Amino acid sequence: NHAIEFNSLFTPAFMVDVDKAKRNAQRMIELCQKLGVQLSPHMKTHKTLECADIMTGGSQRCIVVSTLAEACFYADHGYDDFLYAYSFPFDKVLSRLDLFQILLDHPDALEQLRKRPLKDAIAKTEGVELTGVYAHCGNTYYCTGVEQIQAVAQETTKLTLQFMEKLKAVGITCKSSIGSTPTCSHPVKDMAQLSEVHPGNYVFFDVQQSTIRSCCPEDVAVRVLTRVIGHCPHRNQLLIDCGWPGISLDGAGKLPTGYAVIEGHPNLKLLSMTQEHGRVEPISGQLDYSKYPLGSLLTLIPVRSCATAVMHPVYHVHSKGRLVGKWTPTRGW
Amino acid sequence: NHAIEFNSLFTPAFMVDVDKAKRNAQRMIELCQKLGVQLSPHMKTHKTLECADIMTGGSQRCIVVSTLAEACFYADHGYDDFLYAYSFPFDKVLSRLDLFQILLDHPDALEQLRKRPLKDAIAKTEGVELTGVYAHCGNTYYCTGVEQIQAVAQETTKLTLQFMEKLKAVGITCKSSIGSTPTCSHPVKDMAQLSEVHPGNYVFFDVQQSTIRSCCPEDVAVRVLTRVIGHCPHRNQLLIDCGWPGISLDGAGKLPTGYAVIEGHPNLKLLSMTQEHGRVEPISGQLDYSKYPLGSLLTLIPVRSCATAVMHPVYHVHSKGRLVGKWTPTRGW
Repeated sequence: NHAIEFNSLFTPAFMVDVDKAKRNAQRMIELCQKLGVQLSPHMKTHKTLECADIMTGGSQRCIVVSTLAEACFYADHGYDDFLYAYSFPFDKVLSRLDLFQILLDHPDALEQLRKRPLKDAIAKTEGVELTGVYAHCGNTYYCTGVEQIQAVAQETTKLTLQFMEKLKAVGITCKSSIGSTPTCSHPVKDMAQLSEVHPGNYVFFDVQQSTIRSCCPEDVAVRVLTRVIGHCPHRNQLLIDCGWPGISLDGAGKLPTGYAVIEGHPNLKLLSMTQEHGRVEPISGQLDYSKYPLGSLLTLIPVRSCATAVMHPVYHVHSKGRLVGKWTPTRGW
Repeated sequence: NHAIEFNSLFTPAFMVDVDKAKRNAQRMIELCQKLGVQLSPHMKTHKTLECADIMTGGSQRCIVVSTLAEACFYADHGYDDFLYAYSFPFDKVLSRLDLFQILLDHPDALEQLRKRPLKDAIAKTEGVELTGVYAHCGNTYYCTGVEQIQAVAQETTKLTLQFMEKLKAVGITCKSSIGSTPTCSHPVKDMAQLSEVHPGNYVFFDVQQSTIRSCCPEDVAVRVLTRVIGHCPHRNQLLIDCGWPGISLDGAGKLPTGYAVIEGHPNLKLLSMTQEHGRVEPISGQLDYSKYPLGSLLTLIPVRSCATAVMHPVYHVHSKGRLVGKWTPTRGW
C-alpha cells in the first residue's frame, strides 16, 4: 500500500500530488477560457517540463519564465514561445536575446541595447518590438479573502487598461498582461479586456495561498515528507529530519504552527531548524511521544511552495496514494 | 582582466576564492597537528569533491558528512573512511549502513537495529561497534570574541572527557570528537586529550564567523556576485538580481546591513528579497544612482555560507582575480 511506498523514500522528500496539480491547472485553464484571455502560465514555482505540460494543457506554448536557466531549459525541450519576465540590463545575455521576449522598466536598459530613449522608441527601434505591458499585482499577497483580492484585481486591471489607452493615443498597440495567482483565481469581469494573465503558483498552491483564499486547503498539491528522528522530553520537543534546506526559511513568523503546517497535527509547531534537523513542539500541553515513534513519518505543508520547491533537486510524484514518478526541475540562473 | 572575466558570469553567482579556502584549510590542519588531534573535516558547508580534497590535505580520508547523498557522493569518488554524523532511526538506509559510521542518541534507534538496550550494549552488539562519542558545541554560535569561544570549548571538552572516563570505568574505550568552527579555530589546551575534532564551515567562513571572531573578515572565501538591475528613486532603492534563492533568507534580522554585507558599500542594506530581486537601500541618506549604473556588479558577503552555498548548483572558483574553474556540489538527501 502507499504507506509502504512512501516509507521507502529518503526524507526530507518533496511530494507532488499530480491529480491535484492537474485539477488546479485545469481550473485555471477554464477560468481563462471563460474570461476570454490568454493564459500564459509562469514556470518559476516548479521549473519542470512535466508541470509546464500540465499548465499549458499540452500545448507547450505561451509560458513565462523567471531565469535564463529556465528559458534555456524550456527552449532545449521544444518550447519556442515564451516571455522572460525579468527586467535586466541586457549586458549579460545579449547574444541570446533574439530567442524570447523580455521586460524593460527603465530607459537606461534600452539605451544599453540601442542607445535610444524608451516609450514609443521601443516600438520604433530596429529589431526591437514592444509586445506588451506587464504587471504583477504582488500586493494581493497582503489580502485575506476574495473581496480584497478582487479589489486589487480591479485596481490593477483599471490602471493597466488606462495605460493601454495612453499608448493607443500615441499610436502604439500591444498586449497587456497581469499576473498573480490570487487575482487570477478570482478574476473580475474587466480582466476580460486584458490580453493575457500570467499566474504560476496555482498549480501547487500552499498555505499562504489558502490563507489568502486563492484556494481551499484541499487544493494544495505539495508536501514535504519528513521523519521523526529524535525525542527530547527535557525540552518537550521532537526532532525531525527536515532542516531549512528541506522546507526553506520562508515561513518565519507567518503562522502559529511555525515554518510549516504539520498535516493532521494542528497542535504541533515547527519551531526552528538547523541544516538537517527541525525542532517540533506542541503549541500547548505535553507531547505524547508514543504517537511519534522514531522513524515515523510526518507531512509538512509548505507556507510558500515556490520557496520550498527550489530547495529540492527532485520531486516525488504520486497519484491516488501511489508513487508514479520523479520530476527533475531546472536550477540556477 | 578579472573585471571582464567576472562580468561574463550570469548572476547571481556563487564565488569561491580558492586561495583563501586553501589558506583556511591549511591553518586548521596546522592547528590540529600542533594540538595532536585528528582533524575530521565536515563536508556539509560545501559538499564538493574539490573542497574535500583541500580540507583533507589531499589524503581523502576521515571526513564527516551530514546527508546520505553526501555519503554516497564521496563513497562513489573513492572516499572510504567517513562518519555520517546524523542521528537517525535506521529504517531508511539499513541495507547501506555497513559502509560507514553513524550516530545514535536514543535507545530506540539501536533497538530498531538489534532490539537491544543502548550504552554498553552498543559495544557488545554483534556487528555493531561503538566507535566514539560526538558533540557539536553549537552554542559557540552565540559567542562574541575568543574568550567566550574558548570558555565553550573548555566546557564542552571537560564534559566530553568526563563522559569518556565514565565509559572507561565500565570497560569501554572509544574515540571522542567535538566540533564547531569557532572552537576549533581557537582550541584550548585540553582539547589535545580528545581523539578528533570535526569543524566544517572554516574552509569558507562567513560574516557570522567573523562576527563571532572565528576568523578575520579577510578570511571569508565566498561571495555572491550580483548585478544592479533597477533604479527606484521613488523608494530610494536599487534592485539587484539576487533574490532569496541566491543568498538564502538565513541572514534575517542579524545585521544592520540586512541579508548580507555588500562589500565595499558599508552604507548599503539588502533590505528584502523576492524570488529573483533584491531591494537595496542606504542605511542613511539618499542613493547616488550614478555610482550604481544598471548592469554594474555588486558583491555580497554571505551571513552564513552553509545557507548560501546550498542554494547554488555550481560554484565559480577564482584565484588571484581570474576564474579558474567550477565546482559542482552534491544536493538532496
